[in-house]
Amino acid sequence: MTERTDPANRAAPPEHCGPIRIGFLGMGVVGTGVVELLLKQRETIQRKSGVQFEIARIAVSNPDKRRAAIVPQNIVTANVEEVIDDPAIHVVCELIGGIEPAATYLHRALAAGKHVVTANKQLLACAGHSLMEEAEAGALDFQFEASVCGGIPLIQPMKNALAANEIRLVAGIINGTTNYILSEMEAGHGDFETALRSAQDLGYAEANPESDIEGHDARFKIAILASIAFTGRINVAAVPVEGISHITPRDIKYARDLGFAIKLLGVARRVTNTDVEVRVNPALVRTDHPLAATHGVNNAVLLRGEPVGEVMFYGRGAGAGPTASAVVGDLMDVFRNIRHGATGRVPCTCALPLQQVHPDQAVTRHYLRMTLRDRPRTLAEVAGVLGEHQISIQSVLSLQPEEVSFGYNEVVWLTHLAPWGAVRSALATIELMNGVESIGASIRIEDLK
Amino acid sequence: MTERTDPANRAAPPEHCGPIRIGFLGMGVVGTGVVELLLKQRETIQRKSGVQFEIARIAVSNPDKRRAAIVPQNIVTANVEEVIDDPAIHVVCELIGGIEPAATYLHRALAAGKHVVTANKQLLACAGHSLMEEAEAGALDFQFEASVCGGIPLIQPMKNALAANEIRLVAGIINGTTNYILSEMEAGHGDFETALRSAQDLGYAEANPESDIEGHDARFKIAILASIAFTGRINVAAVPVEGISHITPRDIKYARDLGFAIKLLGVARRVTNTDVEVRVNPALVRTDHPLAATHGVNNAVLLRGEPVGEVMFYGRGAGAGPTASAVVGDLMDVFRNIRHGATGRVPCTCALPLQQVHPDQAVTRHYLRMTLRDRPRTLAEVAGVLGEHQISIQSVLSLQPEEVSFGYNEVVWLTHLAPWGAVRSALATIELMNGVESIGASIRIEDLK
Repeated sequence: MTERTDPANRAAPPEHCGPIRIGFLGMGVVGTGVVELLLKQRETIQRKSGVQFEIARIAVSNPDKRRAAIVPQNIVTANVEEVIDDPAIHVVCELIGGIEPAATYLHRALAAGKHVVTANKQLLACAGHSLMEEAEAGALDFQFEASVCGGIPLIQPMKNALAANEIRLVAGIINGTTNYILSEMEAGHGDFETALRSAQDLGYAEANPESDIEGHDARFKIAILASIAFTGRINVAAVPVEGISHITPRDIKYARDLGFAIKLLGVARRVTNTDVEVRVNPALVRTDHPLAATHGVNNAVLLRGEPVGEVMFYGRGAGAGPTASAVVGDLMDVFRNIRHGATGRVPCTCALPLQQVHPDQAVTRHYLRMTLRDRPRTLAEVAGVLGEHQISIQSVLSLQPEEVSFGYNEVVWLTHLAPWGAVRSALATIELMNGVESIGASIRIEDLK
Repeated sequence: MTERTDPANRAAPPEHCGPIRIGFLGMGVVGTGVVELLLKQRETIQRKSGVQFEIARIAVSNPDKRRAAIVPQNIVTANVEEVIDDPAIHVVCELIGGIEPAATYLHRALAAGKHVVTANKQLLACAGHSLMEEAEAGALDFQFEASVCGGIPLIQPMKNALAANEIRLVAGIINGTTNYILSEMEAGHGDFETALRSAQDLGYAEANPESDIEGHDARFKIAILASIAFTGRINVAAVPVEGISHITPRDIKYARDLGFAIKLLGVARRVTNTDVEVRVNPALVRTDHPLAATHGVNNAVLLRGEPVGEVMFYGRGAGAGPTASAVVGDLMDVFRNIRHGATGRVPCTCALPLQQVHPDQAVTRHYLRMTLRDRPRTLAEVAGVLGEHQISIQSVLSLQPEEVSFGYNEVVWLTHLAPWGAVRSALATIELMNGVESIGASIRIEDLK
């Protein structure tokens, strides 16, 4: 316990007595990376944080599984209680993933007075608030830098160095798998299916790639970033999500000809003081914007705030090394807080009531591609329907690529700003019109202002 | 004072009694931005940091000068003692700049038990260590995020989220003025003199631009970044520095044709565990590297660490708004530490003895441009001298631009890796050779690996 202190006093920080004991829940690729880093950099970590630490216990579902030699086998157990209930464990490092049983375990760990470091984005996005409230009530640390974009510092900078800003926009490439696939397509290495197989061959995409390519992984991450940026809770279920499986090489080519790259973005925008727009969708980004220069499995997150202006963070968003960097960074933060009797120093910042605007109300420009019968009045009729929906046209290109049958044109429209609801409704009408063969694509243009 | 605490205890943090009082040294453009941000975001800052604060006193050299209306005139004084000696002031925010009298003032403030937030890169780079040692001895906070690259979070992430990494390379565009000038030249808007005048007209360059264009500003910043990255002291005077006034549009054009952009970089590289290479120089950077996409007054800093890999931070490196963002972020950090009795929580990290390698030993590839008489054997003779100095040639281009007189060729060499000492010595020989009209340029190629 600490007493009141006058800030003008020179208070020598107390030494923590004995090593801080870390218990692990889960020991897969990331966990092994964390243990490796803790052992390799032990001297540096102890010097910088001012404490000794010990890897005390590792709970796994199958303790007999062969593991990397660096994981001390004698502390591996199948009994999770040996981590979450043992009073000798000070910090629980949760690397199981998923909501349950991780949430139950961490509630018990917090109830037992343990600090928590986790890399679990789904848990954070879907059930983080009750855990953070419980941590705050107990003045316990609850850190989760590794849950978003691996090794790229984002949570800590938003909660600390940038904390005085009013953040107005978070927009990022926050899923490496889909960025790899889109980069491959951009480089002319085939269509979506080909690029996906290449990603799977390289271990960038899982055998079941749905969570990545349909945008669910990005949804968890943008929900976490938005809640910190706007200091309020985000309802993940109300975040509209659109994946990339319908993006074609043709759209990528047309976009490039028009000066854009196509990226899967998580976007969180402050619309008013209480209304926020949070969504995941592929988008056209101007090729001269730094986000467009983010290739392969790299991630990049742009923050726009007042008064800092535009700040961008870039790096590897996944993998054992980058994730271990973030987990151990969080552990060092906890170590310092324990040493200084300051745990719970930066608690959950979700203080404001936020309203998520309906997806129909999200306003952007749009890229629309459709196949029209090659007769003069069809284009005018389509333009008329767009006009009836208050959608202004910035440019229209009528093309005859070899993929389109004789007697048809491929028409690409770039609109001015329009709410998605209006575009959706216009497209529903256009699709049924005489002379309209098909709607090929409708992709947002993200101006990032 | 704090007592020993068992980390398993749930310690409720103490409430600080009464508002934290901030005293300012200096109130120019940045200071006004800081006061403005503190007042505008008072509610957010107090909620996030858990304390009340008060702008208690502002010491300036000329208190009668007309200031922005937002600065409370009744607390402005010409008497610096009213800030650094008043026991009622808890935190001193130093925004004077330069080494003296700032250093003397801050030593006195620390001796009086005050925490310090500063944006003073020159002070930090040249006299930071004795100040930080004094702060550490008193368990006082000494924060300086704003001293490097304005609003871009760099110091805090390196000391916290990335603290477990072994940083191997820091390479950055850390001076906005020179990046603006080089971007203008790259865009074909004239030569160095023209671009400099444009920068001056826009307020990006000072009337006396020497500190920016000769690289001295960048030298302070790379010294600070290197000392944190490699956790040891850097001798600023031993950091070789080369500016950009000799960069010509022709070199920028040739570089682009070869796939490079020319940028002024601060580079800090770990050569061995104890030997580091720290320098400032213009360099050719591959155009597909994110650093090359950093245009105008923006800054970008690349860190390469183990295990995080490559991480990049990008944003506005100067200006009242970005700098105020960083200063107030630091103040909030101090507020939290005061509230939790944890001041001095992240002290100076310069623990290792470092040796700076001699500039001659820095190894990079090189771009060399020279004017040779148009006769067959001169090129072979120059190649021979390079070979005698163990400098391998990667490519050589012989050109006849209209700027070069009849009877002469302009020859551009790209070398393989070679120490600067060897290149310097070879060029000294080549310059005196028969058939060599002049050495036009010698610029490093930075491979950023």
